Amino acid sequence: MTINFKRRRERLQQVMLENELDGYLIVDPVNVSYLTGFNGEDSYLWLGDSDALLLSDSRFTEQIKEESPDVDAAIRVSGQTTYGLIKDAIGVGKYNSRVPKKVGIESSSTTLALYVKLCETFSELEFVPRSNDVEKLREIKDAWEISAIRLSIDISIAAYRETRRIICQDATEVDFRDELEYRMRKCGGDDVSFPSIVAYDARTALPHAIPSRRVRLSDANMVLVDWGAKRDYYVGDLTRTYLTERGLGASSAEYRRKFTELFKIVLEAHDAAITAIKPGAVCKEIDAIARDIIKSSGYGEYFGHGLGHGIGRVVHDSGGFSPNASSTLQANMIMTVEPGIYLPGWGGIRIEDDVLVTPTGSEVLSSQLPVDE
Amino acid sequence: MTINFKRRRERLQQVMLENELDGYLIVDPVNVSYLTGFNGEDSYLWLGDSDALLLSDSRFTEQIKEESPDVDAAIRVSGQTTYGLIKDAIGVGKYNSRVPKKVGIESSSTTLALYVKLCETFSELEFVPRSNDVEKLREIKDAWEISAIRLSIDISIAAYRETRRIICQDATEVDFRDELEYRMRKCGGDDVSFPSIVAYDARTALPHAIPSRRVRLSDANMVLVDWGAKRDYYVGDLTRTYLTERGLGASSAEYRRKFTELFKIVLEAHDAAITAIKPGAVCKEIDAIARDIIKSSGYGEYFGHGLGHGIGRVVHDSGGFSPNASSTLQANMIMTVEPGIYLPGWGGIRIEDDVLVTPTGSEVLSSQLPVDE
Repeated sequence: MTINFKRRRERLQQVMLENELDGYLIVDPVNVSYLTGFNGEDSYLWLGDSDALLLSDSRFTEQIKEESPDVDAAIRVSGQTTYGLIKDAIGVGKYNSRVPKKVGIESSSTTLALYVKLCETFSELEFVPRSNDVEKLREIKDAWEISAIRLSIDISIAAYRETRRIICQDATEVDFRDELEYRMRKCGGDDVSFPSIVAYDARTALPHAIPSRRVRLSDANMVLVDWGAKRDYYVGDLTRTYLTERGLGASSAEYRRKFTELFKIVLEAHDAAITAIKPGAVCKEIDAIARDIIKSSGYGEYFGHGLGHGIGRVVHDSGGFSPNASSTLQANMIMTVEPGIYLPGWGGIRIEDDVLVTPTGSEVLSSQLPVDE
Repeated sequence: MTINFKRRRERLQQVMLENELDGYLIVDPVNVSYLTGFNGEDSYLWLGDSDALLLSDSRFTEQIKEESPDVDAAIRVSGQTTYGLIKDAIGVGKYNSRVPKKVGIESSSTTLALYVKLCETFSELEFVPRSNDVEKLREIKDAWEISAIRLSIDISIAAYRETRRIICQDATEVDFRDELEYRMRKCGGDDVSFPSIVAYDARTALPHAIPSRRVRLSDANMVLVDWGAKRDYYVGDLTRTYLTERGLGASSAEYRRKFTELFKIVLEAHDAAITAIKPGAVCKEIDAIARDIIKSSGYGEYFGHGLGHGIGRVVHDSGGFSPNASSTLQANMIMTVEPGIYLPGWGGIRIEDDVLVTPTGSEVLSSQLPVDE
């Protein structure tokens, strides 16, 4: 299975055509990598109407040959600047069929410093700030990307199970997190997708809790873990919430009853949303299906975030389920579904899975890990 | 020992005064944290000529109270934007003694999207792109920062020693890296300073080698490790290069001879540079002292990077030793000194320590780890 980078660039060239852009300067390293396969840093991509040129430095000469054999590279030598390389690239020739006038730039990753310098250096060009052009392309995954995300999810689950099996009763949230992140790597991950959340008891009510060293597992009734491994530059993103030995113990009947009540509501919201996922479904309607279930159970005010987001090369990829999201789902998007109820001072329950939009409905890519494991 | 955040903000207000700025919008989260103590994300700092105001959202209400009790916060509520908060802040009142006209913004961390939106929303203000104002302040460390960096270095060294002691002979570079990073956390680190470099044999000649799974330690003659722990938001950054059991073995006499020759030159460059460090010394002259030793040994072309850089809240803090650096050292700067010789196809040797500029000279903060350990 190979990746057709040229096809990706052609899709961006189509966007350029529709928006009367003669060129595009890509500076976000994730987008450079998506469009070329090259994973180094400090490098830009010039995309003309005819062909693409990587602008890089001598640290990356060999890596570009290896990772992007089908893309030309202009390598900066001592005394040269990237601006000099761009100047050479924008003449009529292999990369541009005509002299570029309007050039797209990425408004969320181009710094003001770079923009000022570009405008000074290329007074003959009009730089057009653009949002989300490559990010929109990235929403639809190809077969290679889907299999990469499957692998990252498998690694995430294997590491979670190992950690659950070996974790000591005196582990703080920090200890738990450190074990989990270590095991994501030992199970084949290149890195973690994002800083893992491990929270005990009332701290589970903080959707972005930072693990602390205060409490030990033996003193906790419940645990929330939000984690994911990254492999081959693609991520997984899962959440599980469970009762500890103490939480399951005889002294915690009332606590257990509350946990079970909330868990059941969150799970119902989770399942109903997933059942509704299919091409053509409107994102805010999927969000509403889950939100209405939580609302009608009386906990609407305790579900303060969107239902989910796209995942891919980054954990918050473009697209998502929220009350205002008017976009529609398309086949081969991959989204998280992660409803939650967070009661301040008591705790929060979240269940998060990764879901592929299929031509006829959906497939839960993380279904091998039961929601209550 | 407490940190005087107000004093830091006053130093920036002095810079504002010198540059006729009535306000400053700080968006780089590292700089927001440096100036206020608040470590959350997605938050900005408005600094008027009179006082400071954090602009944040409801996720961080409690964290701001805890981390920045002396700073006012404007918390965005549903339907509000950060721009609305800024609008409220810039009237004459607690934060500004007069109506702001010229406002500094950080050109390297303000995105084009934010800049465009600011200019649209505040047509009455002139936004002045500025570089390195807070970064320059951050170059000089106070007593708290120096002790934080000492602690991060101690953790880095403890983790390195543990890893060296327990690492298996079948460990690949990736395995070695994973153990080291795990142990940096177990030894008290909050995180790693940067993705650690672990390279064997010829791969040590790549100054930014990414660890591979190809070769096992038992098959390697030498190892280069470039690593550092982060604790309390401050980093350490060290490099050691050593011969393995195999490299020390009887069959490797020629290899060992070459290693010893190069190591001696690099160490001489390292020691000579450190001896010359003191307040008032010119950075490029420190670089030249090390570079000339390597050049006169015939390896000048194999030392392709600068001699060192500032460290602090980030691993590449402002300031550094390079052939063009005309700045002078001041007391309480902390710099890496890291000469190297990299022979393509054979391997590279780098020795890196962290050095505090003292009122009369320098102190090597990592001297408890011998250069050949």
